[in-house]
Amino acid sequence: MAVVDLNSDLGESFGAYKIGDDQAMLSIISSANVACGFHGGDPLVMHDTLMTARDNGVSVGAHPGFNDLWGFGRRAIHGDRPEDIEKQMIYQIGAIQGMATALDMRVGHFKAHGALNNMAAVDFDLAMATAKAVKAVDPDMIYVALPGSEMERAAESLGLCVAREIFADRAYTDDGMLVSRKLPGAMIEDAEEAARRMVDFVETGTIESITGKRIPVAIDTICVHGDSAAAVSMATKVREALVSAGIAIRPMVESLGRS
Amino acid sequence: MAVVDLNSDLGESFGAYKIGDDQAMLSIISSANVACGFHGGDPLVMHDTLMTARDNGVSVGAHPGFNDLWGFGRRAIHGDRPEDIEKQMIYQIGAIQGMATALDMRVGHFKAHGALNNMAAVDFDLAMATAKAVKAVDPDMIYVALPGSEMERAAESLGLCVAREIFADRAYTDDGMLVSRKLPGAMIEDAEEAARRMVDFVETGTIESITGKRIPVAIDTICVHGDSAAAVSMATKVREALVSAGIAIRPMVESLGRS
Amino acid sequence: MAVVDLNSDLGESFGAYKIGDDQAMLSIISSANVACGFHGGDPLVMHDTLMTARDNGVSVGAHPGFNDLWGFGRRAIHGDRPEDIEKQMIYQIGAIQGMATALDMRVGHFKAHGALNNMAAVDFDLAMATAKAVKAVDPDMIYVALPGSEMERAAESLGLCVAREIFADRAYTDDGMLVSRKLPGAMIEDAEEAARRMVDFVETGTIESITGKRIPVAIDTICVHGDSAAAVSMATKVREALVSAGIAIRPMVESLGRS
Amino acid sequence: MAVVDLNSDLGESFGAYKIGDDQAMLSIISSANVACGFHGGDPLVMHDTLMTARDNGVSVGAHPGFNDLWGFGRRAIHGDRPEDIEKQMIYQIGAIQGMATALDMRVGHFKAHGALNNMAAVDFDLAMATAKAVKAVDPDMIYVALPGSEMERAAESLGLCVAREIFADRAYTDDGMLVSRKLPGAMIEDAEEAARRMVDFVETGTIESITGKRIPVAIDTICVHGDSAAAVSMATKVREALVSAGIAIRPMVESLGRS
Repeated sequence: MAVVDLNSDLGESFGAYKIGDDQAMLSIISSANVACGFHGGDPLVMHDTLMTARDNGVSVGAHPGFNDLWGFGRRAIHGDRPEDIEKQMIYQIGAIQGMATALDMRVGHFKAHGALNNMAAVDFDLAMATAKAVKAVDPDMIYVALPGSEMERAAESLGLCVAREIFADRAYTDDGMLVSRKLPGAMIEDAEEAARRMVDFVETGTIESITGKRIPVAIDTICVHGDSAAAVSMATKVREALVSAGIAIRPMVESLGRS
Repeated sequence: MAVVDLNSDLGESFGAYKIGDDQAMLSIISSANVACGFHGGDPLVMHDTLMTARDNGVSVGAHPGFNDLWGFGRRAIHGDRPEDIEKQMIYQIGAIQGMATALDMRVGHFKAHGALNNMAAVDFDLAMATAKAVKAVDPDMIYVALPGSEMERAAESLGLCVAREIFADRAYTDDGMLVSRKLPGAMIEDAEEAARRMVDFVETGTIESITGKRIPVAIDTICVHGDSAAAVSMATKVREALVSAGIAIRPMVESLGRS
Repeated sequence: MAVVDLNSDLGESFGAYKIGDDQAMLSIISSANVACGFHGGDPLVMHDTLMTARDNGVSVGAHPGFNDLWGFGRRAIHGDRPEDIEKQMIYQIGAIQGMATALDMRVGHFKAHGALNNMAAVDFDLAMATAKAVKAVDPDMIYVALPGSEMERAAESLGLCVAREIFADRAYTDDGMLVSRKLPGAMIEDAEEAARRMVDFVETGTIESITGKRIPVAIDTICVHGDSAAAVSMATKVREALVSAGIAIRPMVESLGRS
Repeated sequence: MAVVDLNSDLGESFGAYKIGDDQAMLSIISSANVACGFHGGDPLVMHDTLMTARDNGVSVGAHPGFNDLWGFGRRAIHGDRPEDIEKQMIYQIGAIQGMATALDMRVGHFKAHGALNNMAAVDFDLAMATAKAVKAVDPDMIYVALPGSEMERAAESLGLCVAREIFADRAYTDDGMLVSRKLPGAMIEDAEEAARRMVDFVETGTIESITGKRIPVAIDTICVHGDSAAAVSMATKVREALVSAGIAIRPMVESLGRS
């Protein structure tokens, strides 16, 4: 029986500011990437997100980013050395581990956020900084990476357990990379189409590129978004299609044997 | 043989901003209270502070405060519920635990910073929030408190190991409380006098109030400051006087059996 | 013909975080209190809020608060001297004046936000700090104050033009002060009732206290909120009732002759 | 008689954190670039810096940067559109104008800080964003730029008064650009040498490149630093050498006729 994980970025509210429909998403996904207070999130939001995840049987991971609340971690910031990034990752992972420990929960995976994730995907030194941070704090933690990225390579070189991630709403190049958002066709906007693709990709163990080429990829987890009603609707459709196709949805910590 | 710990607040620099003479203090004290990034400190500073502490054989503790960098955690902020404070403490303790884990070190004690410490000393609910945070993350962590404060009472009620702290540069009331800084004689400014008092207090197991009354206090740790050349000089004098008097200076985690 | 102003706190979004239905409110009110980047707001949000206000014929004012984004300016922060508050007010007023100048607009009034407003209402020194800030930057700027508060007294003592403000959704004590939110009946939750009261108060030049007593008050502006659908609905009802009663709704800068 | 201005970046302290020897620098320079609260500085620091500048007969300018306190505005941040940068500049200029107005002072010039300055120097769109901000708030404000940079070109295209700036401690390429700090010889570390060069450059109206080539440059202002004792010493030497050579040191607002 085929198995896959559904993950989403959550817990990105801050103080009086609410963002995303976390409640809805936690009834859809199996793994939550929880913001750690740098690009979004705060101790209260983290606590609530962890508790609600637990109530929904959803596993939790650390989702650290640049210390750029105003830019929501989406601005590429140049100037930190890799070892500085490593320390910023360790701090954020430690913080959410503390929050989880207080709830008798475990932080099972790591997924970098936004601009940092994009930068590390193509920069081996930066990728190593993030992977070293994970290994330093908890070598059993799963490292989520885009297949073929420098992040996958870095995490593997350190012996970390890697979860390969595809995006429900993105098109892929013939090299298995994401089509730039600036190009036509980069985004899969039709929820039915996205759902159909995910079932197809998981069942065949391949992804279909924008030109129709088939690329073999071991898919461990599918990223869905919850930042708009349309996004929540797409996530629901993806889940329903997977279930209908007889594909089990399980937290990556279970399917990868790290629970 | 009498034993006492010397503690100081360190690691409060931030980015390009340097504050305090941490290097000097780490050669004087036995336990460092390391800022956790809210009122001061950042992941790079925390990392360096932990490493330098280790190199000097100094034990480390969490020193969390209000999320008020501009006010350096010294402004009394009203509006957070005790359970909100608890989560902010857990976050900060977790963060420094992560940094310590990456260096194969342990965070052995907890001491609240500035305005939060002052508020919790006289507010049992707030004191409980800080003590619950410690218990939730690591019940073996030592909780530093002013003898006679609500913090001492809260920590004891939760079964935490409490380290009673006195201040080298402060005068005490007949009730064993700190004389308000607004009153004359509140500060002990003469380093020789401070040093003499500390030896006396540790040897007799009492503190002498501003009126000359003797109050029995089990003293576990003495707080010294490093924010000015005069402060570093006083800390040095206190250390030398204790050593000359044959009093052993040991980290509180050792003397209280929590290392 | 009776005239009154309708004001609301706007422009409190921050980066990726949206809060309040500013677009709806700007079609209802006549004066906007625009957040200045400390408790909420940022340069992009301020620019958009100013432009949309102008497009809707709404006058704009500075709405500065404590430098507490996480607490949204609602936490009472103790520790700043009045002269420090004065400088923080001047900074924020200057910032929004710059934004307005770039759009060829004028910042016509000042209204302090949240906890700072609550604290200054009952603390003359703090009230004077806010009033001095206004006078130092633009002595023609209108100062919005609760009738009978220390802020009204301070602003008058400096010769500032004061706009007296009542709240559509709050009950009043026999002394003309706001009934504490902790007491029953403090909030007027029924929109029709709020609308009826506002027409009554403006027409009679009095407010009716929670015990039924009539207090003479020169009402210049009515505060309405836009932070929920119910709030927007109440604001709409208040506006409609005023218009139906033949009361003109005009920006305070016009009715008070400061445009 | 030859005339030149001496400028320096000041007012970059923040809350309890002190940086730079502003007091010393204000007795050496003729124009102060005052940080505006984003990369450094706060309302209290700005107020004190403005007052001390006035007491020393030093003119003041706005010195805005990225909203990156932790990185001190030295990290290149990508992701803001030019129009977003423009608004962030306007906000900061407005803020310091407010602070200056309260002291009956005028903000006479604009100099972008750190990474933003470096990025705008080679990016015309970004340069235009900064120049538009100046023009929108005060078209009489002097715009400080590296000769030959996109910033000079942008400011000129908008009809702004441009002050051409050279650095006392930097070597120049044959194109009149700064030699990268990564290359040998980029920094002039000898204070006597720096002082000698500045006198030579001002007297000849040329700068000498690292290969010995002479490049004609209309020099309006020389940038000196105050972030270390060595920097203050170099600034002193530069001033003394200029005075000894009979070169008048005057604020750029005077020499460029904008006071």
